[in-house]
Amino acid sequence: MTTAEKIGQLVQLFGWHAYTRTDGKLHIDDKFAQQIEKGEVGAFYGFLRADPWTGVTLETGMQPGESAEAVNMVQRIAVEQSRLGIPILFGEECAHGHMSIGGTVFPVPIASASTWNPALFQQANAAVADETRARGGAATYSPILDVLRDPRWGRTEETFGEDAYLCGEMGAAAVRGMQGQIPERGIAATVKHFVGYGASHGGRNGAPAPLGPIELREKDLYPFEKAVEAGAMSLMTAYNDVDGVPCTSNRKLLTDILRDEWGFDGFVITDAGALGMLAGGHRVAANYEEAAKQALEAGVDMEMCGEVFQGHLMNAIESGQVSIDVVDQAAARNLNIKFRLGLFENPYANPERAEEIVGSSAHRSIARELAEEGIVLLNNRNQLLPLSRSLKSIAVIGPNASNRYNQLGDYTSPQPPEAIVTVLKGIREKAGAEIDVRYAEGCRILGDDRSGFAAAVETARGADVAVVVVGGSSARQFGDNTIDQVTGANLIAEGDSDMDTGEGIDRINLTLSGVQLDLVKAVHESGTPVVVIYINGRPVSEPWIADHIDSVLEAWYPGQEGGHAIADVLFGDINPSGKMPLSVPKHVGQLPVYYQVRRTNGRRYLEMDNEPLYRFGHGLSYTTFEYSNLTVEPAQIPADGEATLSVEVKNTGGMAGKEVVQLYVRDEVGSVTRPVMELKGFDKIALEPGQATTVSFTIGKDQLQLVNRELKRVVEPGEFKLLVGGNSADLLEVPFTVMK
Amino acid sequence: MTTAEKIGQLVQLFGWHAYTRTDGKLHIDDKFAQQIEKGEVGAFYGFLRADPWTGVTLETGMQPGESAEAVNMVQRIAVEQSRLGIPILFGEECAHGHMSIGGTVFPVPIASASTWNPALFQQANAAVADETRARGGAATYSPILDVLRDPRWGRTEETFGEDAYLCGEMGAAAVRGMQGQIPERGIAATVKHFVGYGASHGGRNGAPAPLGPIELREKDLYPFEKAVEAGAMSLMTAYNDVDGVPCTSNRKLLTDILRDEWGFDGFVITDAGALGMLAGGHRVAANYEEAAKQALEAGVDMEMCGEVFQGHLMNAIESGQVSIDVVDQAAARNLNIKFRLGLFENPYANPERAEEIVGSSAHRSIARELAEEGIVLLNNRNQLLPLSRSLKSIAVIGPNASNRYNQLGDYTSPQPPEAIVTVLKGIREKAGAEIDVRYAEGCRILGDDRSGFAAAVETARGADVAVVVVGGSSARQFGDNTIDQVTGANLIAEGDSDMDTGEGIDRINLTLSGVQLDLVKAVHESGTPVVVIYINGRPVSEPWIADHIDSVLEAWYPGQEGGHAIADVLFGDINPSGKMPLSVPKHVGQLPVYYQVRRTNGRRYLEMDNEPLYRFGHGLSYTTFEYSNLTVEPAQIPADGEATLSVEVKNTGGMAGKEVVQLYVRDEVGSVTRPVMELKGFDKIALEPGQATTVSFTIGKDQLQLVNRELKRVVEPGEFKLLVGGNSADLLEVPFTVMK
Repeated sequence: MTTAEKIGQLVQLFGWHAYTRTDGKLHIDDKFAQQIEKGEVGAFYGFLRADPWTGVTLETGMQPGESAEAVNMVQRIAVEQSRLGIPILFGEECAHGHMSIGGTVFPVPIASASTWNPALFQQANAAVADETRARGGAATYSPILDVLRDPRWGRTEETFGEDAYLCGEMGAAAVRGMQGQIPERGIAATVKHFVGYGASHGGRNGAPAPLGPIELREKDLYPFEKAVEAGAMSLMTAYNDVDGVPCTSNRKLLTDILRDEWGFDGFVITDAGALGMLAGGHRVAANYEEAAKQALEAGVDMEMCGEVFQGHLMNAIESGQVSIDVVDQAAARNLNIKFRLGLFENPYANPERAEEIVGSSAHRSIARELAEEGIVLLNNRNQLLPLSRSLKSIAVIGPNASNRYNQLGDYTSPQPPEAIVTVLKGIREKAGAEIDVRYAEGCRILGDDRSGFAAAVETARGADVAVVVVGGSSARQFGDNTIDQVTGANLIAEGDSDMDTGEGIDRINLTLSGVQLDLVKAVHESGTPVVVIYINGRPVSEPWIADHIDSVLEAWYPGQEGGHAIADVLFGDINPSGKMPLSVPKHVGQLPVYYQVRRTNGRRYLEMDNEPLYRFGHGLSYTTFEYSNLTVEPAQIPADGEATLSVEVKNTGGMAGKEVVQLYVRDEVGSVTRPVMELKGFDKIALEPGQATTVSFTIGKDQLQLVNRELKRVVEPGEFKLLVGGNSADLLEVPFTVMK
Repeated sequence: MTTAEKIGQLVQLFGWHAYTRTDGKLHIDDKFAQQIEKGEVGAFYGFLRADPWTGVTLETGMQPGESAEAVNMVQRIAVEQSRLGIPILFGEECAHGHMSIGGTVFPVPIASASTWNPALFQQANAAVADETRARGGAATYSPILDVLRDPRWGRTEETFGEDAYLCGEMGAAAVRGMQGQIPERGIAATVKHFVGYGASHGGRNGAPAPLGPIELREKDLYPFEKAVEAGAMSLMTAYNDVDGVPCTSNRKLLTDILRDEWGFDGFVITDAGALGMLAGGHRVAANYEEAAKQALEAGVDMEMCGEVFQGHLMNAIESGQVSIDVVDQAAARNLNIKFRLGLFENPYANPERAEEIVGSSAHRSIARELAEEGIVLLNNRNQLLPLSRSLKSIAVIGPNASNRYNQLGDYTSPQPPEAIVTVLKGIREKAGAEIDVRYAEGCRILGDDRSGFAAAVETARGADVAVVVVGGSSARQFGDNTIDQVTGANLIAEGDSDMDTGEGIDRINLTLSGVQLDLVKAVHESGTPVVVIYINGRPVSEPWIADHIDSVLEAWYPGQEGGHAIADVLFGDINPSGKMPLSVPKHVGQLPVYYQVRRTNGRRYLEMDNEPLYRFGHGLSYTTFEYSNLTVEPAQIPADGEATLSVEVKNTGGMAGKEVVQLYVRDEVGSVTRPVMELKGFDKIALEPGQATTVSFTIGKDQLQLVNRELKRVVEPGEFKLLVGGNSADLLEVPFTVMK
């Protein structure tokens, strides 16, 4: 390989401008074709992507089969016309469905995390991978394993929440699902953002992460290690620095820990523009040549967007700044993954399969099931839910009741109206002819316009129950200056946008935006019983609603089948089983708020205590579960031993239901200040009314270890408490000893 | 020495119960006397302390001369009746004046930091030391060098603010002032809280500090290093952990860095109860014996409150857990400081001198000067200030206009009414007979009682100007369950207290408490021009006041002479010269907010930008200063070189005034992500109208170095910007190069 060809394998270009459509026919742009032919590009990002950033619309974008053919046109140039015939790696966004025209839209990751059902999530990821690979995509930029510290952050919805263990389990499931067992249906999962991106200062996107090395290993690195164990082929560096060291130039992270300690054998890609930021943002490099050198020497193998490697790496090599050895190493790693993905054997997409499976009803069923299991019943006083089918009328109210894009979350492609089941549509379908379903929007997400309140109150007055759907919006807007062209993050723009969440949209408050709380109050004052449904991307801190509204559901952004899922839960066809993957603060001034805090977390504030509005692991059911007979056998083990913890769980209510049995561990004395407790296992079970079962957990190294002052994971002798229950507050406990 | 006698030298007991008064005569309590006689106690804490925690009142407490005699009674037992005759070390609180009956009450540290006048602060500390030593105190528990990250923290007032350099300069001045040149007038300064106590999670007192090692060295350790260079004899460990390692058991901090790197040769004391917390709070020790072992081996020499060493150290030694060598080492260090303080030559207090100097008019003058220079003029639109002496009437309004304790801050002793000059009193004195001064309280600090609004508005209506004094209160309350008996921190209690700041009183909001903002609005609506004065302990985030009130003064808790100082500034007898030692956020949801952030600090929030309401270094004057001719010579130096930066500053207004010339440095490219800029020098100058002067700064290692990835302080070659001005926003700049 020539040096230029090697550099080519390190370069990933934005791909959505690589094709044009003339007279209904697709053409590969000449400039792109030449670069491919010359071997100057090894990978494309977002060739199939459609959204406001790319400017690709329902009209201009490619349908599934057509898009697979477009990939094949590109691939043919690479394979048949370039000197070495190396296939292109097409990397695509699949955070919650393939972000391409027609791809099934699953719930956002925070909703999937609320299912506490990694097996189901794995199945969903396999479906997404299948859709993507059929169209030619062979890598994706998920799962996001950032452990959330601060829900002011606009990307909260893209995470699996605040707990490292839950993030690790969901992340490993995503990797297994994406990469699959059948090579031609799998794609390379990219775990990101490595690392600390979920711990940014003030919840500000990409801001410094003030983490010490013990906390970093205990929380932020943990899910990455689990995902690497699960076989992740790719990893993305984070924009941010950790304690002043930018992740994209951090050899300790990208080589010492990732490869030498964990044995990662995939390739490392930068986030879009992250390499350039070493010179232009962090300024740890005086120029792009130096940035390229730092990144390569730290362990970066591929640059997303490719501008620095494409424009400056040759200079840096020729001037002797960068050794060809690190370039060889990076190119070899990237090629290795292309081999492992089977691209050399079969580089081509499958247009027929794409047409068959993209957005298929089977995939929509999985999306619906995931949405159903991710819905969390936060409150249900007076058993207002489930709704009776003998109701005469339902008022469906609120800005998120009938807004398609508002229920899909960030990183979603344009959607034909018929593809999306809104809450209003879902309820109407369920209600059929017998129940009168009335609708009023009431207000928007943002702004202070109350002009719709009167109609909303009037609509509620005449109904037996009012379902008020409020929350947030991560729906990107078409328009100038609304997207950062380097990173793809949203810019905060004046105008018509209702966006209050999503990448780049960080907030100072966790309350409902705009006049939504007032809408809820106004409807509540009508006297009609009110169910509040949150459709949103970050936790809602509204104590008034928690106190005054009997039934509250958290649905997050539930995806295209969200309206069906919500209607199923409202009417009891599905018994809710979601549990919160994060703590909901009562007030932004309490932050940081998460359950896994060191035991010296302070007392209370003048105005209120430190407790959240809703706890981590919280989630009600239409039935009740009773926990008993918590035992551990043996009760003492050596540091390298194992024990079995068992608990009996019984459905003591009148409806079949699923329950997430949660295991927490408290280390009574440790060589460092330990958390109050830590989630170390969970199991989602289904029980018929009156049915009981015994749930068991293995207690071993993974449950007991800590990161000590020497940064080693060790199991220390001493006393522990093992705690089990259906949320993080109501727990049975049993003592346990690791012997000296 | 016997082992028991050695342990005695490690024990500091709470001292305020050591004496009783019967029939007007003081007696040393028998139990205490016996302990002293047996050599079981080496030091007392707060023997002279008076406040709600100790229960010592104006009635039961000791006047200056009497208190010196009481110390001497104790000291005589130690010197004449104990086997070894080792004098007691009396440690006292002197955060802003000796916390004892009659001691001069200076402004709180955040006010002193606002002076940016270390020389004046050194003088104040010398006065405090003199008062304390005359009464027998020989050590104190200040200065506080915690670099403030989060003003929700109740101890914000006790810090020197958000900047490490300013903290270091003020801290070194305090050490020099306290320890002085004349041994019998000096006391051992204790720098605290080592370390990271100002970086606690969520501003919660004593909560974990999530700091990485680079940031720790760059910010938190820096002022301690400066204070150790200045000769600090004593250092206190913090309650909190840093990245999971409790400071009180952290050998890397207490020995490797403090002694081996910095050459500290004093002794290390725990915070009150901090040793017990190793077992009872952090739980890094299974019992008190283990806690004692960990602390001693880490480098602790003395325990404040002494319960663990007194109750458990002998056991630990006899059982072989603790080596006598570490006990010997600790005892030797403590004895060494007693020698250096001259206690062996002259262990006795000086009752006559105490009577003469405690609360002397000379000391009150220094307190007044410090208060004057610490007042920050935040806004002054339309030159509403200074007030004209031809005014007919002034309305003085607000909960802090005439409340003595509310202007003194936490850690203050009981005061006779005549000792305190409130704003009302100061203005009345200044106004004399010519100006009619009317007063209305309007409301309290806390609560929602608006019943005083009408009278306040009425009072304002009839006046030429309304001075509205609002803010906070750190005034401790007598009463049950209001103080943590171990730490002395305040508990949040229901009832009559108006406390919204002070140790233990952390908040979720930075707004004015209670209905104070509404009071300001009501008075503003009267149409009378309004001056707002903040008397408070943490920054006030009230954008409405900044936008609508022409003149706003930040006086912090200005001490007993505060009313004089404020009146002087209001009427222009003193031209304000204070500068903010911290950034004032616009909203609690913006936190963390400080100027010295890495340059990748993120963009904006949906609702507002990241900018503060008032910037670090901000402070107006009644005159204007013009900066020009910024030059550096030479413009290039080697890494170990020095250059001289010069700037011309001219008083271009009509009044004599003082200006704080501030030097900031920007490192254009660094091996770690560098801050936007960092304060690296300042100089407070005085200029007559029309007068100009040249201010110079040395540019060398201290100004240019960073903490690199190997945790070394180094000067890296490359480009810098040197920026000079009267605040952190309006700056002249000049490029500067460190050569390869």
